[in-house]
Amino acid sequence: MQNHSASPRIGILGGGQLGRMLLQAAANYAMETSVMEGDPECPAAHLCHRFVKGDIRNFDDVYAFGKGLDALTIEIENVNVEALEKLESEGVKVFPKPAVLRIIKNKIRQKEYYRSHDIPTAGFIVTHNLDELKGQEDFLPAVHKLAEGGYDGRGVQIIRTKQDMERGFQEPSVLEKMVTVHKEIAQMVAINEKGETALYPPVEMVFDPHLNMLDFQICPAELETKVLWKIEAIALSVVRNFKSPGIFAVELLVDRSGDVFVNETAPRVHNSGHHTIEAHYCSQFDMLWRVILGYPLGNAEQVLPSVMINIVGDNGYTGDVKYTGLEDVLKIESAFVHLYGKKQTKPGRKMGHVTIMSRDKQELLHQSNKIKHTLFARS
Amino acid sequence: MQNHSASPRIGILGGGQLGRMLLQAAANYAMETSVMEGDPECPAAHLCHRFVKGDIRNFDDVYAFGKGLDALTIEIENVNVEALEKLESEGVKVFPKPAVLRIIKNKIRQKEYYRSHDIPTAGFIVTHNLDELKGQEDFLPAVHKLAEGGYDGRGVQIIRTKQDMERGFQEPSVLEKMVTVHKEIAQMVAINEKGETALYPPVEMVFDPHLNMLDFQICPAELETKVLWKIEAIALSVVRNFKSPGIFAVELLVDRSGDVFVNETAPRVHNSGHHTIEAHYCSQFDMLWRVILGYPLGNAEQVLPSVMINIVGDNGYTGDVKYTGLEDVLKIESAFVHLYGKKQTKPGRKMGHVTIMSRDKQELLHQSNKIKHTLFARS
Repeated sequence: MQNHSASPRIGILGGGQLGRMLLQAAANYAMETSVMEGDPECPAAHLCHRFVKGDIRNFDDVYAFGKGLDALTIEIENVNVEALEKLESEGVKVFPKPAVLRIIKNKIRQKEYYRSHDIPTAGFIVTHNLDELKGQEDFLPAVHKLAEGGYDGRGVQIIRTKQDMERGFQEPSVLEKMVTVHKEIAQMVAINEKGETALYPPVEMVFDPHLNMLDFQICPAELETKVLWKIEAIALSVVRNFKSPGIFAVELLVDRSGDVFVNETAPRVHNSGHHTIEAHYCSQFDMLWRVILGYPLGNAEQVLPSVMINIVGDNGYTGDVKYTGLEDVLKIESAFVHLYGKKQTKPGRKMGHVTIMSRDKQELLHQSNKIKHTLFARS
Repeated sequence: MQNHSASPRIGILGGGQLGRMLLQAAANYAMETSVMEGDPECPAAHLCHRFVKGDIRNFDDVYAFGKGLDALTIEIENVNVEALEKLESEGVKVFPKPAVLRIIKNKIRQKEYYRSHDIPTAGFIVTHNLDELKGQEDFLPAVHKLAEGGYDGRGVQIIRTKQDMERGFQEPSVLEKMVTVHKEIAQMVAINEKGETALYPPVEMVFDPHLNMLDFQICPAELETKVLWKIEAIALSVVRNFKSPGIFAVELLVDRSGDVFVNETAPRVHNSGHHTIEAHYCSQFDMLWRVILGYPLGNAEQVLPSVMINIVGDNGYTGDVKYTGLEDVLKIESAFVHLYGKKQTKPGRKMGHVTIMSRDKQELLHQSNKIKHTLFARS
């Protein structure tokens, strides 16, 4: 990857919006890009040199895709790790390392990773079935999380009472003490092969309680200096102990007393970094390419403060998407619109996002509120 | 194009760096993109839904490519206008209109267009051969410009003396009075189907005298208010009289007394607008998509002042490109690097560009000077 004369061959597992935005940024450099994904009409399929239809969870598909590439990255954790390990042993660089994916893909292993590295995280118990869960009444209120297969709010149950336990999982899971959340923060960290790191300013996230989906986020988060320092130190500890180059979104919970807990980590570009496309010197996508290509890390500083609003499929609409209110949002002078080109909408599906950039926080909040009430992905 | 539920099918004639950057921006919206170009390894070939190998100057190729599309645009003027006229008559929208391309492709017609619309431009005489040129000694010093087929400095001769006339053209050409240039300015203007316009702040260009190629440019240009007003009024007059939606780069010369002359107009995204990708709210590429898709015009204002430096193939090097000094430039905190992914370099070939963004003009000049002396496209 150090030879700048050639076009390195880089593959991405997954072809959704993260792949799409990675490929938009890839076109600022010289490289040959490949994408593997099951749907040939996925958002990233037409933006690469080589699209391969395949199952990113299937050993043979992933191995065949990666063989002959210089490097591989992911846009989702749910990939075949065994194939990545074999490719890695055969000299293909994988960002992040497959060993990291093994830890992160399984919530039990992920929690044990935090504990074994003295990284503050909510207390937890491992359960293997409902009977084990039912013995833990003293541990409530808590959150029951499926060890594998959960995504965007699926595989997570809040357990406040004994009755709630009926909604728990029969499979290996983590029962996590509930943290009284004051703020939800995401801290993006990039780390290269030399171990150098770049930290983005932390963002503050606001979730839609119904879908457990990011609703909008503000950057930079408003935090006391000592809390900010804690967040940075904890996120660096999470990332450095993985001993893997890549980009990581560390999600943290801050309680009212200023204590900080790692909630979970995504070892990839992430929804919470979309604002960096316009509002930061080096976007999260550009940053990951720099790590993969062996280039110097970029400047994570902001150009201006920002808000990012996800456009998700509106409730009650499934089918060919129509964007209501798009023209009104395109008229907002400080707004940057990103549509992911998905043809079908369904409730909660991520269809696009809008970033607002302004020096004035009131303006940011005013415009993001306006967008939330104007722009809808419907059918 | 007003129906936001469908994916409009849009074609681009030409697949160079302008097409590449158009397609990077296209992925922020829902559309189906096609590119036609002779070289299947051109910078834009892998970033579209459908790449068609073909000759953009050939009637049949252009007609077959455009048939069935909703709209077409160009990244170079040197296309088959007859095919575009036929497509237009059959309902395909063309940005800019073919009638504009007819005027602009031919320097005689272009100069006559300015004259007939009372747009200030350097005085000129039409010549059809060297004999006609030789009768115009009283008109010197002047610039002889081939009516058709010139590009990036080819087809232009400076004629100061009778002896210089030997280097003139035997074909139809324009002999233009030399303007004593104080500043070279480019004014980008977008105009939509309703006739609404968006003006970018004018940029000041510095050329390499050897290659007649843009060396670097500063935005905004430093201009007296009354000169700025003249530039805006003249550029608007150029664009409005074309009666065509699209985006236009109007190149103007300002002399020491503050008089402004239109040099030439490009009816498309342009090298002089590359800084808008990062330094403006709406980039020139996004702006053209808004015009084509019938969306509201974007905000042309700057986020921060900027300089843009072209990376052109270094003299004395032809072959597989290697970028010397790339890592040093990637370390500059205010720099945005764009490589066009061309495999082969040759002297003067546009291989990429770098934008610097800063509130501080001295910093802009310092960093652009550093980049000019650090980054080279060699073989």
